Amino acid sequence: MTPFLTKLARFRTRSVSGGEGKGEVNIFIGYQLPNQSKTEGEKLMRVILNDVYLREGAQVEGAVMTPEDQLRYVQLLLEGGIDSIEIGFPSSSPEQLADCQKIVDLVRKWEGKKPLLSGLAIAMKDSIQAVRDAGCDVCHFYIPTSNELMDAQFRDSKYGNTKEDKQNWIVETAVFMVKFALSLGFQKVEFSPEDAARAGRDFLCRLVEAVIGAGATIVNIPDTTGLRIGNEFGDLIAHIFKTVPNIQQAVVSVHCHNDSDHSTNNALQALLAAKAAGAEKFRIEGTFFGLGERSGMTKHEAVIMNILTRRDVMEDDRFIGMELGFNPMFCYKIVHFIAHALGMSVPRQWVVVGDQNALCSAGTHQSIEIKAGEQGSESPYYSWNPAKFGHEKGVSIVIDQSSGRKALADRLSTLGYQVSAKQLSEIYQQVMKLSESKQGRQVSDKEIVAVVQEIVKEIPNRMLVTHCQAIGGLGTIPMAAVILQVNGEPVQKTAAGDGPYDALMKAVQLAAEYFFPVLLQAKVVLDDWQASAVSKGQETLADVYTRIRLANDGNRIFSGRSTSMDTNQATAQSFANCLSWLLTALENSAK
Amino acid sequence: MTPFLTKLARFRTRSVSGGEGKGEVNIFIGYQLPNQSKTEGEKLMRVILNDVYLREGAQVEGAVMTPEDQLRYVQLLLEGGIDSIEIGFPSSSPEQLADCQKIVDLVRKWEGKKPLLSGLAIAMKDSIQAVRDAGCDVCHFYIPTSNELMDAQFRDSKYGNTKEDKQNWIVETAVFMVKFALSLGFQKVEFSPEDAARAGRDFLCRLVEAVIGAGATIVNIPDTTGLRIGNEFGDLIAHIFKTVPNIQQAVVSVHCHNDSDHSTNNALQALLAAKAAGAEKFRIEGTFFGLGERSGMTKHEAVIMNILTRRDVMEDDRFIGMELGFNPMFCYKIVHFIAHALGMSVPRQWVVVGDQNALCSAGTHQSIEIKAGEQGSESPYYSWNPAKFGHEKGVSIVIDQSSGRKALADRLSTLGYQVSAKQLSEIYQQVMKLSESKQGRQVSDKEIVAVVQEIVKEIPNRMLVTHCQAIGGLGTIPMAAVILQVNGEPVQKTAAGDGPYDALMKAVQLAAEYFFPVLLQAKVVLDDWQASAVSKGQETLADVYTRIRLANDGNRIFSGRSTSMDTNQATAQSFANCLSWLLTALENSAK
Repeated sequence: MTPFLTKLARFRTRSVSGGEGKGEVNIFIGYQLPNQSKTEGEKLMRVILNDVYLREGAQVEGAVMTPEDQLRYVQLLLEGGIDSIEIGFPSSSPEQLADCQKIVDLVRKWEGKKPLLSGLAIAMKDSIQAVRDAGCDVCHFYIPTSNELMDAQFRDSKYGNTKEDKQNWIVETAVFMVKFALSLGFQKVEFSPEDAARAGRDFLCRLVEAVIGAGATIVNIPDTTGLRIGNEFGDLIAHIFKTVPNIQQAVVSVHCHNDSDHSTNNALQALLAAKAAGAEKFRIEGTFFGLGERSGMTKHEAVIMNILTRRDVMEDDRFIGMELGFNPMFCYKIVHFIAHALGMSVPRQWVVVGDQNALCSAGTHQSIEIKAGEQGSESPYYSWNPAKFGHEKGVSIVIDQSSGRKALADRLSTLGYQVSAKQLSEIYQQVMKLSESKQGRQVSDKEIVAVVQEIVKEIPNRMLVTHCQAIGGLGTIPMAAVILQVNGEPVQKTAAGDGPYDALMKAVQLAAEYFFPVLLQAKVVLDDWQASAVSKGQETLADVYTRIRLANDGNRIFSGRSTSMDTNQATAQSFANCLSWLLTALENSAK
Repeated sequence: MTPFLTKLARFRTRSVSGGEGKGEVNIFIGYQLPNQSKTEGEKLMRVILNDVYLREGAQVEGAVMTPEDQLRYVQLLLEGGIDSIEIGFPSSSPEQLADCQKIVDLVRKWEGKKPLLSGLAIAMKDSIQAVRDAGCDVCHFYIPTSNELMDAQFRDSKYGNTKEDKQNWIVETAVFMVKFALSLGFQKVEFSPEDAARAGRDFLCRLVEAVIGAGATIVNIPDTTGLRIGNEFGDLIAHIFKTVPNIQQAVVSVHCHNDSDHSTNNALQALLAAKAAGAEKFRIEGTFFGLGERSGMTKHEAVIMNILTRRDVMEDDRFIGMELGFNPMFCYKIVHFIAHALGMSVPRQWVVVGDQNALCSAGTHQSIEIKAGEQGSESPYYSWNPAKFGHEKGVSIVIDQSSGRKALADRLSTLGYQVSAKQLSEIYQQVMKLSESKQGRQVSDKEIVAVVQEIVKEIPNRMLVTHCQAIGGLGTIPMAAVILQVNGEPVQKTAAGDGPYDALMKAVQLAAEYFFPVLLQAKVVLDDWQASAVSKGQETLADVYTRIRLANDGNRIFSGRSTSMDTNQATAQSFANCLSWLLTALENSAK
């Protein structure tokens, strides 16, 4: 395995201000990511991550990406160095099969580390054949094994008359299908005893031994209903390692559902049981963002964070020597990509990658963090470092009443604003007032932007929409007229468009280009437009947010906001604000 | 304690169709909620839930509700029967103090079960006095106890020179402050050794014993950095119960952060340790939706689900005899309320209350569920019942290629649509086609609504906006003209408004009332309006969703959607669609 990150010494995440006049302090986070073991020559244990979103997650209503997004998603997994991917259930439909083939093609062309690709099947020849047709490396099939599922699935007497008969049928069928899959030339065969966590242990161990004996190379133990808590699931894995004589010939894998909110714990307990049993490899199935049936399943981001934090920060002996193949820096990006692709959002408090993980909010924590920083000690509260999991910066101290000018200046620059010292002073005063009115609590970025727009009037006020009128409707040619005023000088422009807003933006852009020909260089593309009612009831203000992108300049973005009784007006002014920030940036870069 | 739910026998959640011609089948879920213990005379253990959102959650950037929403939130907690609430940190600002007083007033007026109200303080007289001024029942104060926090907070030699000196100072101060709080007349005093999970165990136990000796009635043990996993935190609680001689004189409480995604496990392990030690009461601090610093903290919804499922469904001996005071039916409502109030959304896969928990999506699960239903067996996969945690219905089988007409009819009725048998047939065919084009996968409600609008043209087509024109802009009187066509007959109406959309909706409403005077009875209020670009780039379609509410009829809602190059047009037509569905409902109810 190639080490996925170079060894890093303790590092500073970023400078923050410790309040007025206190000067610059730092948050230190003692985080190293050596992939090496602690002791030379110590045996390493490889933790394999198998991503099952494309099969498990994508079964779920509302959690299905477009085929294009699926390919982008696979691309991200490849870049992150995923160990293996379950790409689908090829026999479920011809379209699934075709989708799987596309993913196989994409991965074949990838020149980096190639993950193993598996496809799911039921214990039927046709279903297994479809996995072969899809071009997967691994054939993964399953059979229900708990009494509950056997009752539902194998009630018919053709499976036998007694429970023992039915169990024998299951063992024979599983063995037969392993051999069948091997005969098709699969590199590896994976078997899952479905609902293993509720199955009889003796039967389960007999079944696992039999399939390994028949040549299965991966045995995946699922907690299908997600109801195991505490040590229960880890104990089951320990029992399998202890009881099944040929267990070390296969890679053991776990698949934990999250109904009880224990899927991370269950996967880790299983991993520790495998380590204690001397396994050289162990596989954890999961998805980013925990997508899967019902409450979903083990979150890769949580497993990765636990292993790395325990191994490198807390130096927990049980985790020393464990090796991962996935770059943790991709955690943030992938979870947020999935949410975006599915039209969901990542809650601020989501484990590891929620944005709140990189904010020091509580006033009481802030003061201790700042004190520790001044003393040069390690961060007392942030012992794991969000920056290592893909948060853009390390921990930032949020802006509130205890924040100083430097912290605010830093935040403004992050938000893309360049302001003068005098403006900074004014913004600072307003932000402190705002914080006071919020009972000393944090001022959000959105609120900071509003204050900036109010104070740094020369930017949004560079271009003022003093009149605007737009007409649309069926049977009309949508058109708009605007009067844009710059330094008191008005110019009127009209434009037609595909709708009244399109016409409005085109008219604003024409007027802006009249005043500032430098804007002609920029290829402005509308990146986002959102309008919402500020409150309920017809007579309300429209709050319009517009974002533009520079298609010819690294896709830089500029945002504008405006609120008005009139959505036309708010749209035109918010678009003009985008152009004003763009213009200022162009002028500054020309200096 | 009043039992919060009557004893329920096994019940049917809802009817679903098992595919064409298979007739009606059922999902059975064996869920009972007796609050009684299993055996007569058995000792009960009371699990107390302390909600700390108003203090812990509301510290967090972006997680602060408006004061009005805070009061609505407290009202929901009261209705759900919460045991206690930490309402804030009164000494942090005069505004916080005033907010706390408002909450105290609200709770004083509540005629149902009254929760204990606590306020947080640091170990200073003024801070504790502020909790008294706020009117709280309980004074809760804390002191850092881990070496990490002591290093940051108590480095100064005024706290002593050696670690032992500093620890002695902490014990003395804590004892002094407990006595001070009692002298102010507090009903109860709560003490938290901050970062206890990283503190030295001997020191921690000495401190806990001392504060209980001084009169503290609640001792709250926090895992402040959220890094405990597996049994570590439960072991600490077991150690405290074993070691602190006067521990049974206080209620032990836990406060677990979620950085490692183990906060549910840690709270439950602690609860089991307390039960094993013979505690009659145990308190778990948490928040709904897990809000709190960084990755948040123990989720009430997960703790409640675990205890009830273990006790009543799985009959786990360790949980038998545990009593809760909170009505689990409020879990869904409260989490979704919080998300709405904070402008967040609840991920579909969120534990317990995510919408996915009430959907049976995977085709393989569906077929087994349907088979089990036909046989009258219990649900193999849904052993805990989402309906008991506030999901509106029990588990629904989602609509996909395997779904039958009855399942679809049921779904349409849920969505508020009444359709004829002929229309149902057509909708069914379209939905199956759509599912096929989605590779046999589920058709979402949104997609079903689109199909319904396409097929049941007589409803959205009852009122067609054939022309619309709106004018707005600074310096104009926003006005609109529409031609609304009903049965081929057009009528033109104009209206002025606060903006062009308001004018458009008013004009549409006037025209609709002209045709259908029954609409004059309805007090229509705009409940939601959202417009978004369908794709990126200026030349795109606007997708407008409009929802109206009947202020005079139980706040019934009706939704409409429309897509057009022209946002005016899409707004007017989507509003007309709302009115059409409203009209149909009014006519049907008059029959």
